[in-house]
Amino acid sequence: MDHLSANRSHGGTQGVYQHESAATGTAMTFSVFVPDHAPGAKLPVLWYLSGLTCTHANVTEKGEYRAACAEHGIIFVAPDTSPRGDEVPDDEAYDFGKGAGFYVNATRAPWSTHFRMRDYIERELPDLIASEFPADMARQAITGHSMGGHGALTVALRNPGRFRSVSAFSPIASPLNCPWGEKALGGYLGPDKADWREYDACALLDGGARLPDLLIDQGEADGFLTEQLKTNLLSEACARAGQPATIRMQPGYDHSYYFISSFMAEHVAWHAERLAA
Amino acid sequence: MDHLSANRSHGGTQGVYQHESAATGTAMTFSVFVPDHAPGAKLPVLWYLSGLTCTHANVTEKGEYRAACAEHGIIFVAPDTSPRGDEVPDDEAYDFGKGAGFYVNATRAPWSTHFRMRDYIERELPDLIASEFPADMARQAITGHSMGGHGALTVALRNPGRFRSVSAFSPIASPLNCPWGEKALGGYLGPDKADWREYDACALLDGGARLPDLLIDQGEADGFLTEQLKTNLLSEACARAGQPATIRMQPGYDHSYYFISSFMAEHVAWHAERLAA
Repeated sequence: MDHLSANRSHGGTQGVYQHESAATGTAMTFSVFVPDHAPGAKLPVLWYLSGLTCTHANVTEKGEYRAACAEHGIIFVAPDTSPRGDEVPDDEAYDFGKGAGFYVNATRAPWSTHFRMRDYIERELPDLIASEFPADMARQAITGHSMGGHGALTVALRNPGRFRSVSAFSPIASPLNCPWGEKALGGYLGPDKADWREYDACALLDGGARLPDLLIDQGEADGFLTEQLKTNLLSEACARAGQPATIRMQPGYDHSYYFISSFMAEHVAWHAERLAA
Repeated sequence: MDHLSANRSHGGTQGVYQHESAATGTAMTFSVFVPDHAPGAKLPVLWYLSGLTCTHANVTEKGEYRAACAEHGIIFVAPDTSPRGDEVPDDEAYDFGKGAGFYVNATRAPWSTHFRMRDYIERELPDLIASEFPADMARQAITGHSMGGHGALTVALRNPGRFRSVSAFSPIASPLNCPWGEKALGGYLGPDKADWREYDACALLDGGARLPDLLIDQGEADGFLTEQLKTNLLSEACARAGQPATIRMQPGYDHSYYFISSFMAEHVAWHAERLAA
């Protein structure tokens, strides 16, 4: 693992790292914020999965999570959203290919070689975090934004018991039922929608999967709400499943980091309560 | 004045605006955060002057000031650092020309036509803020970073009574005594260093100017500290002048927005105490 940068910030260290990923077959970059802590101490981990077009850098620069993570003693991990590099196939559009991995293991050529973000996020990167950082992997939580909100929900639904708490900012509620999802899952997984269901939060809930506790913030002025995000589908799936959830519609807020940063400290505090030893 | 963007954030509105500046003869862009407030209410104003290479966008995206400004009910204004546009002369280096206006009125060709950032910051933009925003101009404070710290100090020292409080993050303490200052002031003002003194915080203090109250944060791991910033010169000038000042050296912190954002909330709270009605 290479250390690309380290900056002292908010009473901790904001680092950016790169490693050769076996899952994606590429170099992968991610950021980790580690609050100051006693020697030998292990801290709980909050994962943040980013949205379309993003790298680790967007939330690292604009997410405003460090003050809250330092206050609560939480490690914050921000992975990239896809494999990168000249050898990685891409698409001209912003919503497919690089920057748009959708946290799936692609099964269709040419994507299946490198686009293995599910394995990367669920297995490889957690192992690396556990070995290289003072992380208490028995105390993990996960959140994310938009495509990364979809990622957070589906990773947690497929891995019961791994996370004590799950939240999301303006998640894609159901890739089976929106243009972003149809394009991406169709491209990565092929046309059989039965294969998409393990990557759809609503379908996973309908199939019996459950989350420990769920907090959602969604901006009412978000231009993607009606066509792509469809928070109502998640509300309805939670209701059908008896899944406890706090789903908050935030008047006036849009899809940007101006929205995310406004509620980040509340999400960190909410996770902190559930991550307390 | 054109509204380029408006995003709801932290219980307020983060806007970006552009107007035709008479001072610089160019279009100038700036950002303003306005917390929610009662109809007709006027809020105090905190100015933030940015450093070399920056536009309004750096602090707007990375400064982490909105939560504190919303809590304390303070308008936050972030101007650009120089005139912009194809007609504006530039220099290949990052520390002269565009992005490096040093908050002076240039007197040397070809800079004197557009590089009139002193007039812009001291006169034109305050008038625009007063007319277009719910600003209580009797309650102003100013801060800034690096070149913008120099700007905040010198604007305040030349305008006694305008600001209730002044702070800075890693300011250039004395352009008369560092390579950045020698290059920029020499280029904009010519070789007679007597002409530079009104743009040098230490020289202004030595000449009898005073500040209402002063807070400085400086990272000890800042790579520019020894050669360019020279906080010690400001400490010594304050001591000679009997100028009250809190100058804090912050172990481990560098020159980046990871440093600035770490102490931004404290600066906003410190100004808020002094801006209280």
